[in-house]
Amino acid sequence: MSLSEDQTITIPAAPETVYKTLRATVPALEAKLYEAVPLLDHGFVRVIDYMGDDHAIVQAARVSYGRGTRKVSEDAGLIRYLMRHRHTTPFEMCEIKFHVKLPIFIARQWIRHRMASVNEYSARYSVMDREFYIPDPAQLAAQSTVNRQGREAVLEGDEAARVLALLRTDAERSYDHYAWLLNEESAEKPADPDRQGLARELARMNLTLNTYTQWYWKTDLHNLFHFLSLRADSHAQYEIRVYAEAMLEIVEAWVPIAAQAYRDYRLGAHSFSAPMLSVLRRMLAGEKVEQPESGLSAREWREMMATLEQPA
Amino acid sequence: MSLSEDQTITIPAAPETVYKTLRATVPALEAKLYEAVPLLDHGFVRVIDYMGDDHAIVQAARVSYGRGTRKVSEDAGLIRYLMRHRHTTPFEMCEIKFHVKLPIFIARQWIRHRMASVNEYSARYSVMDREFYIPDPAQLAAQSTVNRQGREAVLEGDEAARVLALLRTDAERSYDHYAWLLNEESAEKPADPDRQGLARELARMNLTLNTYTQWYWKTDLHNLFHFLSLRADSHAQYEIRVYAEAMLEIVEAWVPIAAQAYRDYRLGAHSFSAPMLSVLRRMLAGEKVEQPESGLSAREWREMMATLEQPA
Amino acid sequence: MSLSEDQTITIPAAPETVYKTLRATVPALEAKLYEAVPLLDHGFVRVIDYMGDDHAIVQAARVSYGRGTRKVSEDAGLIRYLMRHRHTTPFEMCEIKFHVKLPIFIARQWIRHRMASVNEYSARYSVMDREFYIPDPAQLAAQSTVNRQGREAVLEGDEAARVLALLRTDAERSYDHYAWLLNEESAEKPADPDRQGLARELARMNLTLNTYTQWYWKTDLHNLFHFLSLRADSHAQYEIRVYAEAMLEIVEAWVPIAAQAYRDYRLGAHSFSAPMLSVLRRMLAGEKVEQPESGLSAREWREMMATLEQPA
Amino acid sequence: MSLSEDQTITIPAAPETVYKTLRATVPALEAKLYEAVPLLDHGFVRVIDYMGDDHAIVQAARVSYGRGTRKVSEDAGLIRYLMRHRHTTPFEMCEIKFHVKLPIFIARQWIRHRMASVNEYSARYSVMDREFYIPDPAQLAAQSTVNRQGREAVLEGDEAARVLALLRTDAERSYDHYAWLLNEESAEKPADPDRQGLARELARMNLTLNTYTQWYWKTDLHNLFHFLSLRADSHAQYEIRVYAEAMLEIVEAWVPIAAQAYRDYRLGAHSFSAPMLSVLRRMLAGEKVEQPESGLSAREWREMMATLEQPA
Repeated sequence: MSLSEDQTITIPAAPETVYKTLRATVPALEAKLYEAVPLLDHGFVRVIDYMGDDHAIVQAARVSYGRGTRKVSEDAGLIRYLMRHRHTTPFEMCEIKFHVKLPIFIARQWIRHRMASVNEYSARYSVMDREFYIPDPAQLAAQSTVNRQGREAVLEGDEAARVLALLRTDAERSYDHYAWLLNEESAEKPADPDRQGLARELARMNLTLNTYTQWYWKTDLHNLFHFLSLRADSHAQYEIRVYAEAMLEIVEAWVPIAAQAYRDYRLGAHSFSAPMLSVLRRMLAGEKVEQPESGLSAREWREMMATLEQPA
Repeated sequence: MSLSEDQTITIPAAPETVYKTLRATVPALEAKLYEAVPLLDHGFVRVIDYMGDDHAIVQAARVSYGRGTRKVSEDAGLIRYLMRHRHTTPFEMCEIKFHVKLPIFIARQWIRHRMASVNEYSARYSVMDREFYIPDPAQLAAQSTVNRQGREAVLEGDEAARVLALLRTDAERSYDHYAWLLNEESAEKPADPDRQGLARELARMNLTLNTYTQWYWKTDLHNLFHFLSLRADSHAQYEIRVYAEAMLEIVEAWVPIAAQAYRDYRLGAHSFSAPMLSVLRRMLAGEKVEQPESGLSAREWREMMATLEQPA
Repeated sequence: MSLSEDQTITIPAAPETVYKTLRATVPALEAKLYEAVPLLDHGFVRVIDYMGDDHAIVQAARVSYGRGTRKVSEDAGLIRYLMRHRHTTPFEMCEIKFHVKLPIFIARQWIRHRMASVNEYSARYSVMDREFYIPDPAQLAAQSTVNRQGREAVLEGDEAARVLALLRTDAERSYDHYAWLLNEESAEKPADPDRQGLARELARMNLTLNTYTQWYWKTDLHNLFHFLSLRADSHAQYEIRVYAEAMLEIVEAWVPIAAQAYRDYRLGAHSFSAPMLSVLRRMLAGEKVEQPESGLSAREWREMMATLEQPA
Repeated sequence: MSLSEDQTITIPAAPETVYKTLRATVPALEAKLYEAVPLLDHGFVRVIDYMGDDHAIVQAARVSYGRGTRKVSEDAGLIRYLMRHRHTTPFEMCEIKFHVKLPIFIARQWIRHRMASVNEYSARYSVMDREFYIPDPAQLAAQSTVNRQGREAVLEGDEAARVLALLRTDAERSYDHYAWLLNEESAEKPADPDRQGLARELARMNLTLNTYTQWYWKTDLHNLFHFLSLRADSHAQYEIRVYAEAMLEIVEAWVPIAAQAYRDYRLGAHSFSAPMLSVLRRMLAGEKVEQPESGLSAREWREMMATLEQPA
């Protein structure tokens, strides 16, 4: 059974009107407005609206620090200083609103970021689309044996094919039964007049977690950088990381100076604890330091030596 | 295929030790600590910890209003005044932590309340239990024809039986396939040594939305009252309302005065707009008011007359 | 002693460039951008940036309610429905940034609204301006005898003159001493080379609470409406109410439909508790209800009869 | 003129009753409950209530990571892992409520931390106490010449004495005038029956910023650690740092394992950017690196070499 055309989640197109504004405007981001970046098999992210630019960060910092900042002649220098020293409030002055289509199990990770505004498509009110995330074979991987929350070797042989077939079959069957439960030919007309049909708020429970949903998600640049730190990180699950990476590219078009500062000081950065700093100073002084007398646990020692590309 | 005993989500039992404390302590809530209130078919809510009592609200209000409050001789009077006039910050001084087991599609509604702390069972790290929400036949209802987000007539005849069978079969099959995808006899040993198994963070996508999850959920009394206003309301979905009602009973044991004030001024309250107040004054003055000249839309007029139990 | 020109808090002027954008743009608000609305004796509020318009609220609601909303043909009807039924999240999709200059004792009230981003002029980094709030004689009022947090009769005779003189003299003297403590002819050159001068972060403690400060304050429309409900209310202190009223006028230019819905359903609205509703129904049925058997306290009874313009 | 005894801000004493509870209880913190730690000349901080302990963090992490954590046999190891890898949500499960008395200009810094609940003594409702912060001579320092937000050399000669006298005289005079403006012998009786007196909400504007206020301040352990990172830091203003340090001692009594992990991984830690890590690896490989070809700015180079105790 299939749902009518009319029931497909519509994606509003870009408006054709160009307006005049006195607001801070970023041509590189204007060029991307409303344009969906395709992700996974049916997902996307696109910018619907934004407020502020690199200069808005500087402007906010200058009202805070007042005349105290007049010697920092260059905006870039000030933004990089703010990022390096974690002066985060000026970054809150920029705001961005995304339209995102994503599988429900990824939406459940994403929503844990509380400092954002969300309007999600509601399956209490409306009928979900028949779209599911089925991974690309290159993404079908076994559980990592060293990392409880990671994956490792890509599935080989026909196991991948069997896994894909099973994921697809279960999702489709669950969706078809969901549609049967609803019993809606359209919102006004039952598919089978002899059945009452099940309320939408109940029928949705039969869907699988790879069903796609969508939402508007709006946050400020500070909270977005925090989101990206966790979700564009190599430890993040691949299926959310692709969204984060696409968003980071959007941020680079929007606030290029802040995005570069973020890449330099946050993304590739590493924090050393006080005991690690002490080991580091001894090593730089030419001393041969051994783990047992380093003050670090064996695990911390391994992590530190890996970061420094030194033999553990 | 079944998972081993060892993989069942464990519910920590109440500690046997009784401690001595100088903190505000509520015997009626102590009697309920750690005790799971069963909800739906496999869910529960229970209190794990709390901070503050009715007097903590008063104490906070008195530090705010200082000597200005010394004439409000009675705690109850002050708490009722705070509730009536929406002085909300003193209610934030009480905090409570729940352990909740609930279906995923309800967890998705619940998490929209952002002013709370959450630690949810992670299906990236661990294996989900084989438990699904299958509604009681009395809860299987058709879509409401007047309310897009509601349900109406209970399913009759054998439609209910067919619906239940389908929900159960789909959930069980999806779970069994999830277990097959994982291929874990135990965390260390594959079920089938010839297969690699799929990483947990991927396999979970095959589960249906009525699978049970669980979390610790901690919030303050002000935000809890806001949650209850929306979720213990008659328009809330039945499956979350039962949790809200159980939590309201817990709140009544914890802060009986605040809970009564909440029931009196918030739960059963109704807000009248300025134009509605004007209509009300004319009616009380003995005037016969008609909708067309009332300044209210037909819909607002109907809502108002229903609230006042007057003929529309 | 006076500070140099160079030390005056600068107010960035409106940019002269007009940009082209695809974003939602509100001509009526564009006309007000950067324009300071003067308030009190030296304060102001002005809009620096904004995101979204009335349609953005509708757009967010429609993604939530999906195809379920297609029958609400008119945007205004949907916005009014959202406001009446407290569906608040779509209003979070609009964001606004103000530049505000205000006395410190009012800033202390304002900052209690936590769901906003703030960058305030810092007296640790920079020198404060020599500007203080001295009330207009019409605003010099005695303590209310019925309301612990209100004022009442305007001061008469020469008491007002004495009060004003004292406020002015104390503020000026404290500021002059602050400048003396700083000992800065300019940031580089001491006023008196024989003194070290006191650090800015310490010297500021000598200022009086009517000294003006300024900040960028950014929030979303839902939280702004909440702010306005408390601060544009007749119980709010006059000195913050004038800011709230000016901001409400700005909101009316920005999102006229939402602003009108807010005025109708929130600003002039009154909430009746369950026991009050019961009294109301009896009165409308022609019954003569007396306070002692009404279920309401004497105070609640008086409040209710005043609202209904009935004799208590 | 002096205010009556009755108008002094009262500090509720510890309750004498010892209660029995099943909740997590920390004897080392119970011993400190209600006990004011004196700070500055008239300030203090004291714990009024708390919820949770080190084990509550572990408990929350285990519900998140489920059976995945069963191999981390020791609580301390898990807490240290969470802290090192910034898994912050389990720390939100602990909550603490402080009663703090502090100068207004410090309260203005403090309140910028938004993720907390606050009830402050209100000068709209009540009369402020006649207490001001006058720094110890050892804290009277000149503006730093290298750090716009710091202080440096302690004032010498008689400049300190003149500064102290001026601070004291201005605060006392402003307060005396505040009391004159109020014209309250008591809340019911004017000091001078021929004057109306000025409303409290207005009279307060004459107070200086070193006047003491007080509040209840409640937050969770994650947000408290964030507060301490900024306010117990050597760059924080001395007058707020003493509060942060006293609170850190309280945290050590409350959650000793988490507090130690915080000291090891957060307080003394230093973050190196990607370019800095590259320099570090070259240095450890025995290479002689110079700033101009390091990829770091001169300022970053100096900061890095200072951290590593290497010649710049």
